[in-house]
Amino acid sequence: MTHRILMLPGDHIGPEIVAEADRLLQALIDDYGLDATLEYAHLGGCAVDAEGEPFPASTRRLAEAADAILLGAVGGPQWDGLPRDKRPETGLLNIRSALGLFANLRPAILFPELVDASSLRPDVVAGLDILIFRELTGGIYFGQPRGLRTRDDGIREGFNTLVYGADEIERIGRAAFQAASRRGGRLCSVDKANVLESSELWREVMTSIAPDYPDVELSHLYVDNAAMQLVRDPKQFDVIVTGNLFGDVLSDCAAMLTGSIGMLPSASLDAGGRGLYEPVHGSAPDIAGQGVANPLATLLSVAMLLRYSLDEGALADRVERAVGRVLAAGRRSPDLAADPAQALGTRAMGDAVVNAL
Amino acid sequence: MTHRILMLPGDHIGPEIVAEADRLLQALIDDYGLDATLEYAHLGGCAVDAEGEPFPASTRRLAEAADAILLGAVGGPQWDGLPRDKRPETGLLNIRSALGLFANLRPAILFPELVDASSLRPDVVAGLDILIFRELTGGIYFGQPRGLRTRDDGIREGFNTLVYGADEIERIGRAAFQAASRRGGRLCSVDKANVLESSELWREVMTSIAPDYPDVELSHLYVDNAAMQLVRDPKQFDVIVTGNLFGDVLSDCAAMLTGSIGMLPSASLDAGGRGLYEPVHGSAPDIAGQGVANPLATLLSVAMLLRYSLDEGALADRVERAVGRVLAAGRRSPDLAADPAQALGTRAMGDAVVNAL
Ligand SMILES: CC(C)[C@H](C(=O)O)[C@@H](O)C(=O)O
Ligand SMILES: CC(C)[C@H](C(=O)O)[C@@H](O)C(=O)O
Repeated sequence: MTHRILMLPGDHIGPEIVAEADRLLQALIDDYGLDATLEYAHLGGCAVDAEGEPFPASTRRLAEAADAILLGAVGGPQWDGLPRDKRPETGLLNIRSALGLFANLRPAILFPELVDASSLRPDVVAGLDILIFRELTGGIYFGQPRGLRTRDDGIREGFNTLVYGADEIERIGRAAFQAASRRGGRLCSVDKANVLESSELWREVMTSIAPDYPDVELSHLYVDNAAMQLVRDPKQFDVIVTGNLFGDVLSDCAAMLTGSIGMLPSASLDAGGRGLYEPVHGSAPDIAGQGVANPLATLLSVAMLLRYSLDEGALADRVERAVGRVLAAGRRSPDLAADPAQALGTRAMGDAVVNAL
Repeated sequence: MTHRILMLPGDHIGPEIVAEADRLLQALIDDYGLDATLEYAHLGGCAVDAEGEPFPASTRRLAEAADAILLGAVGGPQWDGLPRDKRPETGLLNIRSALGLFANLRPAILFPELVDASSLRPDVVAGLDILIFRELTGGIYFGQPRGLRTRDDGIREGFNTLVYGADEIERIGRAAFQAASRRGGRLCSVDKANVLESSELWREVMTSIAPDYPDVELSHLYVDNAAMQLVRDPKQFDVIVTGNLFGDVLSDCAAMLTGSIGMLPSASLDAGGRGLYEPVHGSAPDIAGQGVANPLATLLSVAMLLRYSLDEGALADRVERAVGRVLAAGRRSPDLAADPAQALGTRAMGDAVVNAL
């Protein structure tokens, strides 16, 4: 059965890096037996410009019919002044919610060739390999009530609701336990249970399902301590599971520890394995249009897509090995190069990976 | 007029480090003309044990009458099973709220002698000097409604409310702008305005008061990006201002960047300059009772207390210079020592500082 892959290039450097993913996928289709078709749609600022909505109904229909989705990146200053429901980020939040993509997997891996790109001491980060499970369709991102209002005393206030049901916590918890049992067998759940009732329930549910995974050792950290431990000794972690907002902050922190944020892919999965895949980095308006963006995080997102949603593990391995060879051969995009004058642009890096397949 | 200083030793290593603060203050009283009396009260787990409440009425009366408060640290595993209103942390939250201590100042400074203690590369952190203003009496820590409930479908949920009024935002904002104008002239406000309405108001208020501080350059970062930037290039920051929860996470992250979390003091101030001072580190149950805790963060908290609440800037300078001399002479507590066998204990470090006055 032919797989349907929906490509959402998005904004700024998004189309540049997704173009390389397209070429990689075409090469896999032409030469390595991948049975897939690629469709395209708008998400984010480009969707607002073209169709008046950051997540148009046309995109939603294609997304619901697709087996997997590849996203470039959304957002940019030109859309910051729009009302909240028209902003690019809202398109991203809405597609996550509409498709039930509750499990955001964010690996923080240090590529051995790039140990010098980290701001941390080499001994602190060498060999780093953390997998963060961030709950993506609940918590304060989606809780009601929310809004802006004027109090009786005439003072304006803004309010949001952080809410988690035991079912939502259990669902992301089980996904993380399963991953931990396939990896290093250690799961750290991060919350703020000493202050927040929502975290109290989080901790209780994580603890209650732990006996179902006897090969996984569960620990708990408060979010402030987790941020400290990530900086102090990140290699103490194997798998981390946490809520939407804490996951947003900790996963970016962990990604930056590696110094190779231009290298890191992510997956957002639903209960059935369908997913949206995207690089961890943003739309980088400052370098858009110059052909210098690093496409490797997007190409590694293609590898995750092949493995998790298309069950094409062998092709995923092939892509990851090709990226490894390109790095080992000393090829670097400007964000990673010691000497930017020697660096390869987006297209040349994409070529190098396709050639290394 | 004799200053009244309330000492709250707290739990675990708290009494050990506050004992050194007591000796330092006695030395300042006996030999350097400080006019102050020291009183003692319970806060945290010790207060639960002695009086049944983590912030007893007797402590509150003394706190309200005091000119300044010095806190050791509160908390420990033996109180974790108590109901929320009896937990040590609740005592801390309640004293902050009862005294209106809305401005939490948390410096992240790298002591030149300790550059090797950081997990970051020396060039990334050498000279680091950030001051974080964390809003301390609002936001999701105190927002109502909050709690645990069972939904109609029988599923339990935990919920909290993140709410900020424009008045609360303006108050912490002005404190941070004033500090930035006395320091490097740069203020970075951290929020999550792309997702949260409460942050939208936060950003709007910060922007609206900026014209009153023409010598300060205001910038904004989303909290996930702020966590990344702290790791990537912390020296880009001068003063950071943010809400209660984001401040909890970012200030611990920033403190850990220095590698000298045992060295960092903090101040929590009300609108009139009264304050509670405490080390950034916690109550460290694992090393309590051994006489090895590093007292320097507590002694530097005394310096902040002298400067901000007692208007004794010259004595504050004297304390800070004494700490500097102790470090320069190579004296180290176990947490900082390259060779722990050579390290000084709590009492010996306190002696060294008093002798260096
Ligand atoms: C753009 C923003 C809404 C989004 C988030 O906060 O989830 C981003 O930071 C991310 O992590 O994917
Ligand atoms: C102990 C805890 C309630 C407290 C907080 O979260 O404010 C602590 O982490 C701090 O930063 O002072």
